[in-house]
Amino acid sequence: MASSKPDIAFIGLGAMGFGMATNLVKQGYKVTGFDVWGPTLERFQAEGGLTATTPAEAVKGKDYCVCMVATAQQAQAVLLEGESAAVPALPQGAAVLLCSTVPCSYVQDLERQLAAAGRGDLQLVDAPARFLLQEMSDPAKLYIVAGGIGAGSNMKMVHQVLAANQILATSEALGFAAHLGLDLKKAADTVVGSQGKSWMFEHRSPRALHPEFQPIASATTIILKDTGIITAEARRAGFPTPMTSAAEQVYFAGVGRGYGPDDDSSLVRLYWEGKGKVGPVAGTAQTEEEKLALVVGLLKGIHLCSAGECIAFAARLGLDLDQVFELCINAAGGSAMLEAVGPEMMSLVKTTGAAAGAPAGDSLDKVVGELQDAVDEAQRLKAPIFLGSQALNLTRLAMAHRPKTAAAATAGMVVKVWGS
Amino acid sequence: MASSKPDIAFIGLGAMGFGMATNLVKQGYKVTGFDVWGPTLERFQAEGGLTATTPAEAVKGKDYCVCMVATAQQAQAVLLEGESAAVPALPQGAAVLLCSTVPCSYVQDLERQLAAAGRGDLQLVDAPARFLLQEMSDPAKLYIVAGGIGAGSNMKMVHQVLAANQILATSEALGFAAHLGLDLKKAADTVVGSQGKSWMFEHRSPRALHPEFQPIASATTIILKDTGIITAEARRAGFPTPMTSAAEQVYFAGVGRGYGPDDDSSLVRLYWEGKGKVGPVAGTAQTEEEKLALVVGLLKGIHLCSAGECIAFAARLGLDLDQVFELCINAAGGSAMLEAVGPEMMSLVKTTGAAAGAPAGDSLDKVVGELQDAVDEAQRLKAPIFLGSQALNLTRLAMAHRPKTAAAATAGMVVKVWGS
Repeated sequence: MASSKPDIAFIGLGAMGFGMATNLVKQGYKVTGFDVWGPTLERFQAEGGLTATTPAEAVKGKDYCVCMVATAQQAQAVLLEGESAAVPALPQGAAVLLCSTVPCSYVQDLERQLAAAGRGDLQLVDAPARFLLQEMSDPAKLYIVAGGIGAGSNMKMVHQVLAANQILATSEALGFAAHLGLDLKKAADTVVGSQGKSWMFEHRSPRALHPEFQPIASATTIILKDTGIITAEARRAGFPTPMTSAAEQVYFAGVGRGYGPDDDSSLVRLYWEGKGKVGPVAGTAQTEEEKLALVVGLLKGIHLCSAGECIAFAARLGLDLDQVFELCINAAGGSAMLEAVGPEMMSLVKTTGAAAGAPAGDSLDKVVGELQDAVDEAQRLKAPIFLGSQALNLTRLAMAHRPKTAAAATAGMVVKVWGS
Repeated sequence: MASSKPDIAFIGLGAMGFGMATNLVKQGYKVTGFDVWGPTLERFQAEGGLTATTPAEAVKGKDYCVCMVATAQQAQAVLLEGESAAVPALPQGAAVLLCSTVPCSYVQDLERQLAAAGRGDLQLVDAPARFLLQEMSDPAKLYIVAGGIGAGSNMKMVHQVLAANQILATSEALGFAAHLGLDLKKAADTVVGSQGKSWMFEHRSPRALHPEFQPIASATTIILKDTGIITAEARRAGFPTPMTSAAEQVYFAGVGRGYGPDDDSSLVRLYWEGKGKVGPVAGTAQTEEEKLALVVGLLKGIHLCSAGECIAFAARLGLDLDQVFELCINAAGGSAMLEAVGPEMMSLVKTTGAAAGAPAGDSLDKVVGELQDAVDEAQRLKAPIFLGSQALNLTRLAMAHRPKTAAAATAGMVVKVWGS
């Protein structure tokens, strides 16, 4: 069996990479891992992996090299810089799979650099290749992105619009729940069973509620890095990203507080630290049920607007929207709201061949009303809700630019605030 | 001389009230002050004022009662609640001058309460009355606001849109200057001599740069209170306030850190605390001149958008825009940017009788370009710039909704993002 499987070099055994590489080992691949962090290499050996002390050593004789480092700078270093770089050591015709979230411009630049270095023979793939991904993850979640080098990175980037907002929304909702005086575990359970649910909330909330925010599954600096790629690329394109930019400022504040190496769910600290220190406050929600509804309303409003920003940005980048939607609802960007409003949003931003996405779920008035209730109450409690407040203003701006002839507003219509 | 001047009761001798009351004393009025804070009463006596131990005692026999407390709740308490309330003790036909920033709805409600309490004889004025204001301040700065009870409060409210944003912008700009490694005193001097200047920057920056943020001229809780009135009234009207809402979240964060009683200029701490704690960063601006230009560009962009939010909100409230503009440029809301773009913005939002405000100052492209340079650099330095980032996204949203037939974009055009 093993003989039919190629040997693989795996560079970067971090939060994402370790799991992917270990999965390949379990599927019977011979995987040689490299990471700058020694203890990780020992851990990888314990899982049955082989290890190398330099990128060059790792890739020697391997027809497949997966690069899962954190940034474009790191990718550049391990692939091309210095004597131990991977590229010069790769066999003729090998495939380099760049799986990190990097700017589309970097992948294109890397392709030029390979040609300039006389390694035009290498196949550069900026999304996990089919056979490898089938092993690394659920085959149902494999996507081949059309559009050449860079398109795969753009696809991951728009997915990360949802990730960046929904990771922080988890902290914001739980912080708000704390200001409301709710039992946080119960609040989290309620959200997971509601229209305010998201993949991120489901996976982050247990760590946010752990007394030491453990385990550290993804450091704050990691999502900040992706957020920076999104907003910088958007600025380059003149595209507004009010949701992701608002999230980014909070990430900067968190990193400035020293929370960079901590799990990103620990940013809940920024939200609940003021409770009890803001002077006399009095909310109007009385029952637990009313308070829980406010938390759900907050999340629905945020998810509505992060969905809009994701889909509008994907449209601007010329991505296949149906594929974006498919990928996002089945991955870490998924949310109940995206699932409900995505099809309508796509039909609103598509310029050609638009399959009519019927409005689904709540009306815009209902989502906005629930969100406004949450923002009103947060103001009474002097609780910061950066994303919720931003989302409410975006829905209001969307209403202000609605054609006067338009029928009753549907929730997906908020996507029009990004222009058409 | 003194015999021609009526005796005055003055309730609320805080940051604003103390100066106003003292000024009246200096002009020869017999002023009886009341405040809940004993030391303030002693200080007022030292300035030649009379004092009382209850609101009722202060107003006894006075035809004029100035109420300069911080909130509508406090106004309600001193005027109407309990045995020592002022209203029952006021002489027939006396004037009550409510000078606090309170929601327009409260002033209207108060008028109804007075009637219900059998005191329809009292004259409720929700802006400083002419003869008093001529003494309390520069006669050139007296404005009589048409529109009945509530209009004066709305006028002050839209002025506070500028105040709320430009107070925080001062901290944001100085925090950014710190991340850039600039000499902060020099940076402040440069701003004051540039198109990035504002009344708030000029008055707040010396306190922001004082090692203990002294003197405490206006506590953070005071501007947070005004900010809350703006955003709550805007939500009630379905009007988006993306700038003021972004500022409000930062004020909440500051109050949650315990900075509520401190001077509002001390929020600069929220901006510069991360410097040196955010990992390896490298900006691209090399010279001091380049760095100073980034700080000025940041402020110009923020002031452009706070001007837009102020004028669009004033238009929505049906206020006399020329008066709003006149009042704001001559008061604490003034900025070089408002002065340059205000007339064009007013002509863009006026529906009738619009005097054509010619575009003045920089083009939108220039302002946006400078702002984008600042946002790019702040991202490289991992420096939070909540308002600058928000302003840039707003200009992008404005561009996205520009009629395709429009001529080259002028800076004032950003006002159109709030709808028409």
